[in-house]
Amino acid sequence: MAEPLFEKVAIIGIGLIGSSIARGLRRGGLSSTIVIADRDEHARERAAALGLGDLVLADSGEAAQGADLVIVCTPVGVCGTVAAEVGPHLKPGAILSDVGSVKGAIIRSMGPHVASSVHFVPAHPIAGTEDSGPDAGFAELFDGRWTILTPGPDADEAAVEAVRALWEGLGAKVDVMTPEHHDLVFAIVSHVPHLIAYNIVGTAADLEDVTQSEVIKYSASGFRDFTRIAASDPTMWRDVFLNNRDAVLQMLGRFVEDLTALQRAIRWGEGDKLFELFTRTRAIRRDIIEQGQDTAAPDFGRRGSTKGS
Amino acid sequence: MAEPLFEKVAIIGIGLIGSSIARGLRRGGLSSTIVIADRDEHARERAAALGLGDLVLADSGEAAQGADLVIVCTPVGVCGTVAAEVGPHLKPGAILSDVGSVKGAIIRSMGPHVASSVHFVPAHPIAGTEDSGPDAGFAELFDGRWTILTPGPDADEAAVEAVRALWEGLGAKVDVMTPEHHDLVFAIVSHVPHLIAYNIVGTAADLEDVTQSEVIKYSASGFRDFTRIAASDPTMWRDVFLNNRDAVLQMLGRFVEDLTALQRAIRWGEGDKLFELFTRTRAIRRDIIEQGQDTAAPDFGRRGSTKGS
Ligand SMILES: NC(=O)c1ccc[n+]([C@@H]2O[C@H](COP(=O)([O-])OP(=O)(O)OC[C@H]3O[C@@H](n4cnc5c(N)ncnc54)[C@H](OP(=O)(O)O)[C@@H]3O)[C@@H](O)[C@H]2O)c1
Ligand SMILES: NC(=O)c1ccc[n+]([C@@H]2O[C@H](COP(=O)([O-])OP(=O)(O)OC[C@H]3O[C@@H](n4cnc5c(N)ncnc54)[C@H](OP(=O)(O)O)[C@@H]3O)[C@@H](O)[C@H]2O)c1
Repeated sequence: MAEPLFEKVAIIGIGLIGSSIARGLRRGGLSSTIVIADRDEHARERAAALGLGDLVLADSGEAAQGADLVIVCTPVGVCGTVAAEVGPHLKPGAILSDVGSVKGAIIRSMGPHVASSVHFVPAHPIAGTEDSGPDAGFAELFDGRWTILTPGPDADEAAVEAVRALWEGLGAKVDVMTPEHHDLVFAIVSHVPHLIAYNIVGTAADLEDVTQSEVIKYSASGFRDFTRIAASDPTMWRDVFLNNRDAVLQMLGRFVEDLTALQRAIRWGEGDKLFELFTRTRAIRRDIIEQGQDTAAPDFGRRGSTKGS
Repeated sequence: MAEPLFEKVAIIGIGLIGSSIARGLRRGGLSSTIVIADRDEHARERAAALGLGDLVLADSGEAAQGADLVIVCTPVGVCGTVAAEVGPHLKPGAILSDVGSVKGAIIRSMGPHVASSVHFVPAHPIAGTEDSGPDAGFAELFDGRWTILTPGPDADEAAVEAVRALWEGLGAKVDVMTPEHHDLVFAIVSHVPHLIAYNIVGTAADLEDVTQSEVIKYSASGFRDFTRIAASDPTMWRDVFLNNRDAVLQMLGRFVEDLTALQRAIRWGEGDKLFELFTRTRAIRRDIIEQGQDTAAPDFGRRGSTKGS
């Protein structure tokens, strides 16, 4: 195995993402020492029992002491607080990073707590599941997935390269973009899709004419896929929407505009308009499969139970 | 093997659903003779090559001659035309059925062509994939899935029981409800989910600020699941929306109303409202898993590549 990339990495927040990073660091021999901090006692107990780090602490500041790299893996809404706790303890030349699904707001909330002697390199791994907590993580989570870095214009090049090497060591492919562009892209490919999935599951739950048990019983006909997305962690997603408000509202505006046009086409029986859209969207699916972002098989192992309309 | 349920079954339209029925009839030994009709020459060639029936014809009326049961498996929009072709050839006591995803409109379009000596028992199997055509079908498609029958109030009981026995023989569980209720239930669990999936994929394709290749590259973060649904057959879905217009518009109205409230909550930073909804929707997912309508595993065989936000 090659030299470790880091002497000491601190992970703050040992949930799904934090614990997957810890496992990946071990798998790749990427850090000589791994220190973990979490405010949740149960999470700390599980992290210790699973042997995810060399040291498991309650205090983020203490964990950050002497670390070459500190990765904040808490929900987006508390990243600023965590940066305030960690900031004073960072050694000169240390790198501070995160994994938040939103980038602009994180830079605004964490940035003020980063001393000029410390390198701030925000990151967002595009990998996850609906589950939370230290038991949900696994070392392979980032294999072959993208991680996006959004360093500022004056960021230290060596620090950016170190974070790139970290993520490549964890199995990911790395892209760099501005935080503003990141937030727009993920508003449309991730945040708005989650919002409308949450919304339709809520709508279906509140109907008077259709019972809850009917919704569940016949969910294989399309609804089921939405419930999976709408089972994602409430805290994480509340924070995403509150912290990427402008981009989400902008993309949601476009979505509603297009939906209104579709609604009109249905009302007036404009079959050609519907057919044209449905043909166009099919081509996009083909591109995703061709580019290896999904498989053509309806669903591994559950052929025939996939959907049904 | 038990006695066949039918002497002669005719399947009109040998696509995904029709060919799955043909294969299931053979698997269960449910009919002594299977006759197939399709207007598409290529579909007929494939049906013959795959040995899906004893006879493969171009003319629906000819196929229906002497059949105990005729199942119309064409898109919803042409079911009326097919009933007009088939109607005059049905023998007294024959059963006419279908598989359309919409029931009220089908009954209105097919009903007038059904003589009083013929039993009309509309059906809708809740099973399918994104694929079309005779090669896409398989005998197991209906195993363990629901099929809904929507017979009229004066329907012949023996005929309804025969259609129930057919679907049970194909592996399905059978429910009976009114066509009006069916159309409301499927508007919310299937039609509106498909519509919003088509819509968001269209919205994402039309943006100026985010490129098509970015959308595809980062689709694992939520969008991908929608593209799968939005790859469903354009003809089938155009017909569904045109033929279940009122129920779809009603449910879409509720969806938009709820979405507007969510939009407001985001704009005004009402995190509690978001959190409350996201917690409620999670519980529905749990019910679906408990009732065996899906598995808890993010996705068989692609753990870690499922999503990521
Ligand atoms: N899950 C995904 O799909 C995904 C994908 C990409 C990126 N992300 C991002 O990754 C981050 C973490 O998500 P996750 O899914 O790993 O969450 P998670 O499983 O819920 O873990 C978060 C952990 O951080 C702890 N924590 C919260 N506030 C803290 C604080 N002030 N100090 C120390 N620890 C604290 C939590 O403890 P408590 O239980 O006490 O709150 C919890 O143990 C989020 O920013 C999210 O946007 C998530
Ligand atoms: N796919 C699903 O997920 C699903 C689930 C449940 C129910 N359904 C319902 O099942 C029905 C069929 O869907 P499918 O997916 O099996 O469609 P499909 O694979 O496209 O097959 C339909 C077949 O019917 C043929 N056809 C069309 N008009 C005809 C006519 N006038 N006479 C004879 N044959 C004709 C088509 O030929 P051409 O190619 O020439 O049009 C095609 O071969 C629809 O009503 C749909 O609502 C579908």
